[in-house]
Amino acid sequence: MRHHCGLFGIAGHPDAARLTYLGLYAQQHRGQESAGIVTRDDRAFKRSVGMGLVTDVFTRRRLEELANPFAIGHVRYSTTGSCHEVNIQPLLVNYSRGQVAVAHNGNLINAGLLRKEYEEHGAIFNTTSDTEVIVHLLANPAHLDKRYPAAHVLSHLQGAYSVLFLFPNRMVAARDPYGFRPLVLGRMDNGAVVVASETCAFDIIDAKFWREVEPGEAVAIYDDGTVQSQRITPPNTFRPAYCIFEQIYFADPASDVFGENVHEVRTAMGARLATEAPVDADAVVAIPNCARCAALGYARQSGIPYGRAFITSHYAGRSFIMPEQNQRNLTVKMKLNVIKPTVKGKRLIVVEDSVVRGTTTRGKIGTLRAAGAKEIHLRVASPPIQHPCYFGIDFPTREELVAHEKNVEEIRAYLGVDSLHYLSIEGMLACVKHPGRHYCTACFSGQYPMNVDHPVSKFALERFQLQMFE
Amino acid sequence: MRHHCGLFGIAGHPDAARLTYLGLYAQQHRGQESAGIVTRDDRAFKRSVGMGLVTDVFTRRRLEELANPFAIGHVRYSTTGSCHEVNIQPLLVNYSRGQVAVAHNGNLINAGLLRKEYEEHGAIFNTTSDTEVIVHLLANPAHLDKRYPAAHVLSHLQGAYSVLFLFPNRMVAARDPYGFRPLVLGRMDNGAVVVASETCAFDIIDAKFWREVEPGEAVAIYDDGTVQSQRITPPNTFRPAYCIFEQIYFADPASDVFGENVHEVRTAMGARLATEAPVDADAVVAIPNCARCAALGYARQSGIPYGRAFITSHYAGRSFIMPEQNQRNLTVKMKLNVIKPTVKGKRLIVVEDSVVRGTTTRGKIGTLRAAGAKEIHLRVASPPIQHPCYFGIDFPTREELVAHEKNVEEIRAYLGVDSLHYLSIEGMLACVKHPGRHYCTACFSGQYPMNVDHPVSKFALERFQLQMFE
Amino acid sequence: MRHHCGLFGIAGHPDAARLTYLGLYAQQHRGQESAGIVTRDDRAFKRSVGMGLVTDVFTRRRLEELANPFAIGHVRYSTTGSCHEVNIQPLLVNYSRGQVAVAHNGNLINAGLLRKEYEEHGAIFNTTSDTEVIVHLLANPAHLDKRYPAAHVLSHLQGAYSVLFLFPNRMVAARDPYGFRPLVLGRMDNGAVVVASETCAFDIIDAKFWREVEPGEAVAIYDDGTVQSQRITPPNTFRPAYCIFEQIYFADPASDVFGENVHEVRTAMGARLATEAPVDADAVVAIPNCARCAALGYARQSGIPYGRAFITSHYAGRSFIMPEQNQRNLTVKMKLNVIKPTVKGKRLIVVEDSVVRGTTTRGKIGTLRAAGAKEIHLRVASPPIQHPCYFGIDFPTREELVAHEKNVEEIRAYLGVDSLHYLSIEGMLACVKHPGRHYCTACFSGQYPMNVDHPVSKFALERFQLQMFE
Amino acid sequence: MRHHCGLFGIAGHPDAARLTYLGLYAQQHRGQESAGIVTRDDRAFKRSVGMGLVTDVFTRRRLEELANPFAIGHVRYSTTGSCHEVNIQPLLVNYSRGQVAVAHNGNLINAGLLRKEYEEHGAIFNTTSDTEVIVHLLANPAHLDKRYPAAHVLSHLQGAYSVLFLFPNRMVAARDPYGFRPLVLGRMDNGAVVVASETCAFDIIDAKFWREVEPGEAVAIYDDGTVQSQRITPPNTFRPAYCIFEQIYFADPASDVFGENVHEVRTAMGARLATEAPVDADAVVAIPNCARCAALGYARQSGIPYGRAFITSHYAGRSFIMPEQNQRNLTVKMKLNVIKPTVKGKRLIVVEDSVVRGTTTRGKIGTLRAAGAKEIHLRVASPPIQHPCYFGIDFPTREELVAHEKNVEEIRAYLGVDSLHYLSIEGMLACVKHPGRHYCTACFSGQYPMNVDHPVSKFALERFQLQMFE
Repeated sequence: MRHHCGLFGIAGHPDAARLTYLGLYAQQHRGQESAGIVTRDDRAFKRSVGMGLVTDVFTRRRLEELANPFAIGHVRYSTTGSCHEVNIQPLLVNYSRGQVAVAHNGNLINAGLLRKEYEEHGAIFNTTSDTEVIVHLLANPAHLDKRYPAAHVLSHLQGAYSVLFLFPNRMVAARDPYGFRPLVLGRMDNGAVVVASETCAFDIIDAKFWREVEPGEAVAIYDDGTVQSQRITPPNTFRPAYCIFEQIYFADPASDVFGENVHEVRTAMGARLATEAPVDADAVVAIPNCARCAALGYARQSGIPYGRAFITSHYAGRSFIMPEQNQRNLTVKMKLNVIKPTVKGKRLIVVEDSVVRGTTTRGKIGTLRAAGAKEIHLRVASPPIQHPCYFGIDFPTREELVAHEKNVEEIRAYLGVDSLHYLSIEGMLACVKHPGRHYCTACFSGQYPMNVDHPVSKFALERFQLQMFE
Repeated sequence: MRHHCGLFGIAGHPDAARLTYLGLYAQQHRGQESAGIVTRDDRAFKRSVGMGLVTDVFTRRRLEELANPFAIGHVRYSTTGSCHEVNIQPLLVNYSRGQVAVAHNGNLINAGLLRKEYEEHGAIFNTTSDTEVIVHLLANPAHLDKRYPAAHVLSHLQGAYSVLFLFPNRMVAARDPYGFRPLVLGRMDNGAVVVASETCAFDIIDAKFWREVEPGEAVAIYDDGTVQSQRITPPNTFRPAYCIFEQIYFADPASDVFGENVHEVRTAMGARLATEAPVDADAVVAIPNCARCAALGYARQSGIPYGRAFITSHYAGRSFIMPEQNQRNLTVKMKLNVIKPTVKGKRLIVVEDSVVRGTTTRGKIGTLRAAGAKEIHLRVASPPIQHPCYFGIDFPTREELVAHEKNVEEIRAYLGVDSLHYLSIEGMLACVKHPGRHYCTACFSGQYPMNVDHPVSKFALERFQLQMFE
Repeated sequence: MRHHCGLFGIAGHPDAARLTYLGLYAQQHRGQESAGIVTRDDRAFKRSVGMGLVTDVFTRRRLEELANPFAIGHVRYSTTGSCHEVNIQPLLVNYSRGQVAVAHNGNLINAGLLRKEYEEHGAIFNTTSDTEVIVHLLANPAHLDKRYPAAHVLSHLQGAYSVLFLFPNRMVAARDPYGFRPLVLGRMDNGAVVVASETCAFDIIDAKFWREVEPGEAVAIYDDGTVQSQRITPPNTFRPAYCIFEQIYFADPASDVFGENVHEVRTAMGARLATEAPVDADAVVAIPNCARCAALGYARQSGIPYGRAFITSHYAGRSFIMPEQNQRNLTVKMKLNVIKPTVKGKRLIVVEDSVVRGTTTRGKIGTLRAAGAKEIHLRVASPPIQHPCYFGIDFPTREELVAHEKNVEEIRAYLGVDSLHYLSIEGMLACVKHPGRHYCTACFSGQYPMNVDHPVSKFALERFQLQMFE
Repeated sequence: MRHHCGLFGIAGHPDAARLTYLGLYAQQHRGQESAGIVTRDDRAFKRSVGMGLVTDVFTRRRLEELANPFAIGHVRYSTTGSCHEVNIQPLLVNYSRGQVAVAHNGNLINAGLLRKEYEEHGAIFNTTSDTEVIVHLLANPAHLDKRYPAAHVLSHLQGAYSVLFLFPNRMVAARDPYGFRPLVLGRMDNGAVVVASETCAFDIIDAKFWREVEPGEAVAIYDDGTVQSQRITPPNTFRPAYCIFEQIYFADPASDVFGENVHEVRTAMGARLATEAPVDADAVVAIPNCARCAALGYARQSGIPYGRAFITSHYAGRSFIMPEQNQRNLTVKMKLNVIKPTVKGKRLIVVEDSVVRGTTTRGKIGTLRAAGAKEIHLRVASPPIQHPCYFGIDFPTREELVAHEKNVEEIRAYLGVDSLHYLSIEGMLACVKHPGRHYCTACFSGQYPMNVDHPVSKFALERFQLQMFE
């Protein structure tokens, strides 16, 4: 039930723990709440996890202790609810066949149901994450003797998942039949197979991209180097439902996701937006940092100069102490300095990648107004977000979405801009390479690729309002 | 030499978390490796655990977060093998009836067997401690509807245990049918029931001693204050086997254990030793700190003046850095300063409570020799330790015990003393109030109160040489 | 390359300590080695300093302890030599007139000479920084009764300095007669006067820019609000020598420095560079982050599209652990991800702000080559750095400067680019508003604004190779 | 102006830094507020200091960085007032002859006067400790060319001091003409000279006691091994005034101080007390830990058995969190457990070494009463403390001394004991080896060995209520 995560795995490399550290570091944008690594050789597993950034959790000594040729790792996003240490992944458990570690990115629709069923048969749960359900399925005597136990148990799951298993003799990388979340395979120079959520993790360790894990596929990499493709479901039994929000916001611009470069997709969306919603202005500026690609695309398409309105503080992200007397827009100013000559007296086209609650965007617009902007035309390089995600993106509740009950004009007024245009759903889908029906656009369109009548809430698995802090 | 734990619980007190903190602090001598507290009100459980001393693990903020009227806590001793965070107690798990927390002091003989059996039925284990077996028994659908589930499942266990459960509606304190480990009940002024391993935990919080939990008894304290005595086994089906080593070494001298004051027992043992092994000397001195009671008893009985040979450093226990050039007996000297006038040219009777490996004692004897002692007569206020303990005392391996293959004369020579005498088993048992056959003396006599043909080793539950560090 | 500091002061504000914290945070780019704040009310001084970033040094509790209406603060850059805690500023000392705190940005040419003289009269020095000389001058009985003691003693100093004093009854902000380093005055809504090195410190606290402290001026702000302009030297006795490197590299693009916006100056330099050294290409890309302004100027002027070749890691700056097996260009890749479609098979104009050693630039160029760039044309928006700075910029030794003994063609070959052009000195000076002779360009031209025959080295004041670590 | 300190120095040993660490550790009882070490070889000084215990301040890495053949160190007691990092000793400063480090134990009567004089001549002070005055005297050009500069400048000081200097070519250990504070010389096996406040520092490093530094003597140990005795004042110009409180309370019982063993002195005082104030009882018990020696002496002399009423917690000294609901005598109980059988229904003679405020003693007496003591006869092995100390013992203010305005009967009633007797001044002086007039007994008798009409208060040197926290 954890949202926004990054996975990394490597099989058969003397420096596996450190390469996993780097692979997680490169995917830190996918999750800043916690980080964990499990490694093993042919005798023993080792696990090290902690709250915080990869660079905070892993000291040199910890990495040295983890030295081993096989490793999987996980980073997780900061959610507001239930960030207990007990939930940090990868999980490592004991069962009748020995030990197994699991790392998971996605959201399981039927986790609560399965959990209830297992508890009624005497099972014990130590975490409140849906990942633990997977290991109970694995330990079930009915599944133990299946030819491909991992692929077999995954067929019981409904929802979105990319998942990594580390068994005593193999690593398994699997992706749900819809392919919601990305998962890619690569190779090191020494032949070691690597797995990651995004290709940017390969770049940092000089791994070569090999191919995507296919929707519904489980790829087993045995310790002897054998690679075996197993099927959770027969190929093409499900229509793909690639998460379009990975392209819009979540993935790193340098990554290839679902087979194409994220920066290119975003630039195309910005250009498309210029076609859909042109306006005359002195400069096109981006709300840093995410919208730079789209803003560049808008500027190129429109011929209006690309400008810099904000300087990002190198030190933002550090925790800082707020003064007692309220400064206007201080949280914005701790992160961004305005370059006044770009703004003062100017007509600006401000490009955003997406607007969720609207509060941050509103603060930044306010800062530009205070710096003397003459006109502000906001262009959002994605459609209005109006529906919840049940597949792993941790949007706020429906009521908090600015587009939930407001129409575009009302949002314009709320944000305080002179004009506002969103990219159309068709325009958005025209910028990606797969057919439009192969993407999940539910957060924009409300059309879910599977039945979500009884979805689990983020805290469905937490009974008694469990609070753990360790 | 110590694989040991301390327990504390309190039911129905507004300051339960802080009182548990104090109760654990007072029993810190029972375990310095880790500490943990689980609390709840009528809605939610909270858990906070960590490696280190009670005062290191719990900050003011953590205690405030734990505020709740019901609490159990646990301290554990530093063992060399498997000190993973995942094993810190109390455990807190989810099962079909909600949540339950467990804290355990002792050692289960049949834990490995039970664990194997449960794993074969699909169970998952997250820790390598035998305590987790207890929660699997609790979650077993076959046990759920028993009248007294906790008492019922404990009847499946073999070995030594004192255990505390915190259920959503009650606390249960139980003790194995042999009563190996102590467990006592007390009451606060406001009527709240408290449970602890030793009475010294009651003194610090001004609780009144009420009674011992009986061997084979499980005492349930319901949230409404009802106290119910349940039976694991019918009364008197087993002959008690109180651990005599609690009296000799482990418990706090200020505590009452098995119904009598520890200091008094030790003083009596010292006096008995003076009768069994008299010798003329200038002074009776104790090896600090444990042997002071026995030394006082020896001095009184013999009429030879009690003297002070060592000053204990107030700062010992802090980690310190050893210089590169070896100093003679430096580890001893970091903890003890010799008072030379007491020692130089004097004939000393040195009293020890027990000798395990002999290395520490030897170092201290060497320090006395270096300070000019003329004669050193070592008197040990317990018999030679020659056999392993399967019931919770973490002695070193048999081969490391100085008395394993050496006779008394050989030990005397090894320790470098002029004469050496141990207290006899009969002498020892003459100093305690229960009949001798009601004590477990297996470490001295080799006579175990139950069949130990297939005992579990400390690491039996760790497959693949699991190493976790978090 | 940076021996540099940032100053902040505020006189007469109930929230002075926290505002100073924010003012230092906004100027963190001027110094990351250490941070310090001294505050006072009308009775007592308080001081808190530490190694590291502003956000690391100051906890909420520390800021609360510093609460007081008058405050000065300092940030300092990490130099390789002598980063002792004892040198952290502001200094706070006792002398015959009470206490005084001093914070200093710059470099004093005659500090060694003065120090020697004072030591010979019995003075004691606790630090190895030149700032301590200033307080000895202040304490000198010959200076105590001058009308303006601070201005008076500064007239004894040679070199570059902007300096803040906090006396028991006033704050004094002063700038050397050449005006090497920036120093600006602002006002808060409540009338409180603020002082900072750069105007970006005013933006974060909503202070209004008032005016620059003039070269050779000392501005005293008394506790009653009176502001008094004092002179260190008569006006216009010296020709200004504003440090051009503040404009090129050091200051924040959002700041106004020496009367004009830094981003605008840099954009103009980039545009000028396009005129001086045009070349055909597919895109203009910046080496992040500093060169973005200049690259934008180059792109606008040339009409070649501005592109994004690098994504800056949000998490760079955190300390990370290098794997044992060397990855190619790993240090670059920890900070930057390459967007391959922008680079692969493309002819790139790469814009840098300045090249000092050349090693970092070379690494980034190598990364672009590895990503498949077809042509790389490096354009540097400043002239070659060939001479040492004696006025506060901590360049490496002359031998380490890539332009020291290499001509442009040799540098081009070393950096591995297809063509290389630097901005000319005339071109550079054409982009700033003051007359060219009013800037110090010594690092480029070798023409120093004052005699530097006997300059002090950075460690001149450290005798016996002092090493202190606290 | 620092009180209660410990000194250690070593000249010419490859492991000097680590041996100093051990020497300070052994003298930790003399000061727990801060610790510092300065070392040097023939080229450079190094300094490392910090707040807290020796074992907290010095990590392995810090000690390795300090590696050097010459070292001096300092521990300082926790005083309530002015514990700033800036005051941590040893001081290390620069003056015209290079660097010099100073560590000081004692209290200078004329420090304020000298400081004022120096400030008026332009001197700057960085600390609020009287030690800094010493370095200003050293740096004074008038003193630089004296034959023995250290001895010469010390002759300007009035008050109590034992002081260590580390010059670039020698270490100097000096003691004031009255010899208030102890200072002893020893030798290592390799010939290296060591200096310490107490001989217990020699025991831990296997150094041999050589001799005391004489009152009024300065012993210079040159780097080539030459030892030179210099005189601050001619021998025997002052009558010794050895601090009797070192014998009663302050020094370690294992140490020799002023030429005799502390434990022996205390035991003799206890015996003398038994003669002066006999009473019938069941047992003699000590208030731990300090009074054990005296209690043993009382028991031996009286023939009444020595008993144990309290167990000292091994974990006291750790900071702990107090529960919100007040427990009776909790602070006492966190440190001491009562052994009830020793106390309940018994007539006890309780021996204390000294009573200052009376609050702690009262709490302990209350604990004994609560445990059921039938009679409590308090015997204090020193006279009532009625006068302030100006020579380095940091007693509370006169008003806080329990004996200040109360007579013995009033104190008895306040403490809640059945009878109370103090040792007489004559009795006390009969137990030490030097003539009574050679001890300073001012805190008991009010007879000061020098004029103290204008003594400095502890904070005399802190103007403006300076508060520094770093």
